[in-house]
Amino acid sequence: MTARSTLTPEAWIAAATDVLVDQGIDAVRVDVLAKAMEVTRGSFYWHFRDREALLVAVLNAWRDGATEQVIKRFEGQNTDPKALIGELISLPFRGRSAERAARVELAIRAWARRDALARQAVDEVDERRLSYISQCFSALGFPIAEARARAFILYAYEVAESILSQQGTLSQKKERSALLQRLVSTRLD
Amino acid sequence: MTARSTLTPEAWIAAATDVLVDQGIDAVRVDVLAKAMEVTRGSFYWHFRDREALLVAVLNAWRDGATEQVIKRFEGQNTDPKALIGELISLPFRGRSAERAARVELAIRAWARRDALARQAVDEVDERRLSYISQCFSALGFPIAEARARAFILYAYEVAESILSQQGTLSQKKERSALLQRLVSTRLD
Repeated sequence: MTARSTLTPEAWIAAATDVLVDQGIDAVRVDVLAKAMEVTRGSFYWHFRDREALLVAVLNAWRDGATEQVIKRFEGQNTDPKALIGELISLPFRGRSAERAARVELAIRAWARRDALARQAVDEVDERRLSYISQCFSALGFPIAEARARAFILYAYEVAESILSQQGTLSQKKERSALLQRLVSTRLD
Repeated sequence: MTARSTLTPEAWIAAATDVLVDQGIDAVRVDVLAKAMEVTRGSFYWHFRDREALLVAVLNAWRDGATEQVIKRFEGQNTDPKALIGELISLPFRGRSAERAARVELAIRAWARRDALARQAVDEVDERRLSYISQCFSALGFPIAEARARAFILYAYEVAESILSQQGTLSQKKERSALLQRLVSTRLD
């Protein structure tokens, strides 16, 4: 069995994502990955035209796993919008997989600071999530513009909770998440 | 006049911060900086023992400018806590200097993902700001734990507003900032 038949494109994407998280985008190079996976550089080109094609695949895999799959799962639940909002707020606390997802996302945001390709993917993902959360608030009866503003506040909290994960004890995190849930649902006169 | 007498430590710190923002921490090297400033490497060692001493100075300058100076300015105003909270919420929208500050901060946060020194500085700054904002909410009469939770929500918004600056028009940004201000001040029964 040759290396090219044992390694899937997904294996290369996973390895590239690991290196991105641990060492940053500059370290994501075909030679580094091939060495880590103990295969020849040549086997890489069986699946990808070049490094850029791999980077596009990494971004697409992130977009799909961290956004489309999550939204699809949410939509499949048929829950009422208030419960959906509660679930969205609890996303940063879903244990090890949420921690891993946060690390990947922060690495991609760091990469996006200096790369147009990653920047575009991040902006699209943010926009897609904000639209989805806005829909939840619209379903609760808030006018469109206000639903969007509330969605931003909820999403800002989610993004910041992963960036500020060092801040506060577990019980403080629970308290602020419960407070946020109440505040974003509170109607103002 | 020799180079070592014309360049201040602050000039090296500013140059290092520029390179950090534009190219990332790995590019912050004495040779790169000396070349950019058109001086010899030797003139660097007149002010700093080594690269690490420069990096510590970069972090200290950021901590001082982006946190201590801001808090000092706020404390000097003797404004009522509600107005202070409004000012805190408007911080991300203070034009070009706020934009620059946000870029520096995101670069430092990206660096902190993989460096203990930067990580510690970022955690301390976050903690210091959260404590200060908590005090403002305590002054409004919220119980300590709730004041801290409200401070987190406000600060989460500030951090996220710089990360998500691509999202929304100017009028949408104004709307969400006004909504946040009302929500964080709203008392729940």
